[in-house]
Amino acid sequence: GISVLAAQKVPDIIDLIAGAITGFSQTAYIIIITGGLGSTHDDVTREALAKALSVPLVPFEAALRAITKRTPPGADPAAFIRQANLPRGARAIMPETGIAPGIIAESKGTLIFSLPGVPREMELMLEAVDIELLALGVKQLRPVVERARLTGIGEPQAARLIEPVLSDHPDITVNILAKPEEILLTLMTPGGESADAKMKRAFSQVLEKLGESVFSIEGESLPEVVGELLRQRGLTLATAESITAGQISSLIATVPGSSDYLKGGVVAYANDIKTALLGVEEVVMEEVGAVSAEVAAAMAEGARRAFGADIGLSVTGIAGPGGATSEKPVGLVHTGLATPLGTETFQKIPRGGRAGVQLKTAVAALDHLRRYLLDEDRRQDG
Amino acid sequence: GISVLAAQKVPDIIDLIAGAITGFSQTAYIIIITGGLGSTHDDVTREALAKALSVPLVPFEAALRAITKRTPPGADPAAFIRQANLPRGARAIMPETGIAPGIIAESKGTLIFSLPGVPREMELMLEAVDIELLALGVKQLRPVVERARLTGIGEPQAARLIEPVLSDHPDITVNILAKPEEILLTLMTPGGESADAKMKRAFSQVLEKLGESVFSIEGESLPEVVGELLRQRGLTLATAESITAGQISSLIATVPGSSDYLKGGVVAYANDIKTALLGVEEVVMEEVGAVSAEVAAAMAEGARRAFGADIGLSVTGIAGPGGATSEKPVGLVHTGLATPLGTETFQKIPRGGRAGVQLKTAVAALDHLRRYLLDEDRRQDG
Repeated sequence: GISVLAAQKVPDIIDLIAGAITGFSQTAYIIIITGGLGSTHDDVTREALAKALSVPLVPFEAALRAITKRTPPGADPAAFIRQANLPRGARAIMPETGIAPGIIAESKGTLIFSLPGVPREMELMLEAVDIELLALGVKQLRPVVERARLTGIGEPQAARLIEPVLSDHPDITVNILAKPEEILLTLMTPGGESADAKMKRAFSQVLEKLGESVFSIEGESLPEVVGELLRQRGLTLATAESITAGQISSLIATVPGSSDYLKGGVVAYANDIKTALLGVEEVVMEEVGAVSAEVAAAMAEGARRAFGADIGLSVTGIAGPGGATSEKPVGLVHTGLATPLGTETFQKIPRGGRAGVQLKTAVAALDHLRRYLLDEDRRQDG
Repeated sequence: GISVLAAQKVPDIIDLIAGAITGFSQTAYIIIITGGLGSTHDDVTREALAKALSVPLVPFEAALRAITKRTPPGADPAAFIRQANLPRGARAIMPETGIAPGIIAESKGTLIFSLPGVPREMELMLEAVDIELLALGVKQLRPVVERARLTGIGEPQAARLIEPVLSDHPDITVNILAKPEEILLTLMTPGGESADAKMKRAFSQVLEKLGESVFSIEGESLPEVVGELLRQRGLTLATAESITAGQISSLIATVPGSSDYLKGGVVAYANDIKTALLGVEEVVMEEVGAVSAEVAAAMAEGARRAFGADIGLSVTGIAGPGGATSEKPVGLVHTGLATPLGTETFQKIPRGGRAGVQLKTAVAALDHLRRYLLDEDRRQDG
């Protein structure tokens, strides 16, 4: 329920740390600092915090006692005693493990937490931070947030589709993050009366505009969604991959329990493998080339047959940088989908370098499968 | 040769971005901003930069023309025209891909670069940043840096091995970054007289200590290194993957030209596929289980045979969270390597959740292949 205003990495220089604290305390209600509480000479967060607060450092008795007790055997306690110093007026958070106490300070209405940098020690102290914030009531102001994950649509197109909805809801902020393989859409509105109802209305309008491009609103990944659709329908899958060389099957296998519906796949990089293991006729490859709708269809059908699966999914394409011809550019990809209802093919030309083309090809193939499965009931009725 | 003073994440709020620019320009000579140059209404970096510089935004002719030309077919150019606005007095960096121009501005001796957030577009523009900095001479202060990429060794073990070398070279700082699949080791020393010679000596000592764990000192990825070893020896490869479901073959295929040595692979998730496509005998799987050294060996040999490849590489294991037994824990993996010289198997128990186990399994299999290829000459002599 707290919105993060900004995050800053600062080097171990007193003036820069103090400057960051002073700067943030003008706009933020809460500052959380990590690191720089150790015993080596580059640990200067205590000094910086004291400088930002314009108070001296003073030894804190309970911390002193704990440090003397916890100093590793054989080590000189003097080296650790600095860690018992706190800015005057601050409170210590005594550590469960480690030596350095955390610090809670306050400056003109801004609450400042200084925690150790060692992740495990920091995590243990976050409990104390949580309790302080609950006591202040700041964790009651939870904003209302909805998220959707999209694929098979461009960022500008998605933005254009939802713009009319959002201009009707000026109090809802939207964030669109475009990754090579998907778009993450976040809607957020401040908590308060009727915020839930408003968000519910706006989000359902947004989802209606985006249609089947939205593959998940509960956070599931595309392989999880595809896997769940296969499982619900009791269907099994086999893959035949050229350009992606196993990326589709390995994405599907990221999901626990995927062995229930993934029978396996063939990585058919060499053309003779497409013939030997998938039964793609040599004459077809000679006539139309390995990167063609015909070969994609034959690969998908071959995978379906070889693995005894309900669905065969195939891709063949030119990942680049080499291999392009005047008719077949880098990125040209044919996807084949062989199902009990017949075989379909799709053509795409993703961009973004070899790795980008491979990733986008794998994701687009999974998305074709997802849309087919969503559509299946309707087709069988028709 | 440039030390990073600080890094800050800022939300898409004009005042906060402008505040960060103003704040940093008091201490930094160079500010690099990424993101917020797109066409949607939350892209406000242009407005923030203009505010920080106290100048208005003015349309930039060349950018306007490019935008009109590059607007996606069917889209309204008006939505994109904002992207042609630049703070008065600033210069544009015209994009190679994408639409938004980058911006170079200057404020009281601080050079400010504003680049797109889309990683690919940003990377292409970094060239322009580089040229500006070279012109200013700031890139002349280059420290001497050496890097190594390691795998098949733990971080504490690597640190222990190189410690004696580095205590002899107190002016060399070392950074060890442990990722799930590899360790990145960076040695750095300030530029200056004899720095090169000192680094050369220290680095060769470090490499000697680390031995074959170092797979790359020129930055190549593990699939690139393995691919180059296969290519040099004129060997072809086929894979048989259960637990990783195609991740090994897809890693190999990230390298341009990998079709020269990768014949293909079988993703054998279901046991009957291991039999049908790879010739693993059913009775073996019944006796010792699919996750066993025997089945790994048979899968590797089956892949070698089915694809007519010189080398067959296989993995079978338990990715989790389900599937473990009292004798076979989650993460148990057997790797098989079938070569003209015979078949070897390896056993490992990587940790780190399903995705971590799968990734570490794929990388470890590639690393077994790498070490075999490095060792091959010696074996053939012996």
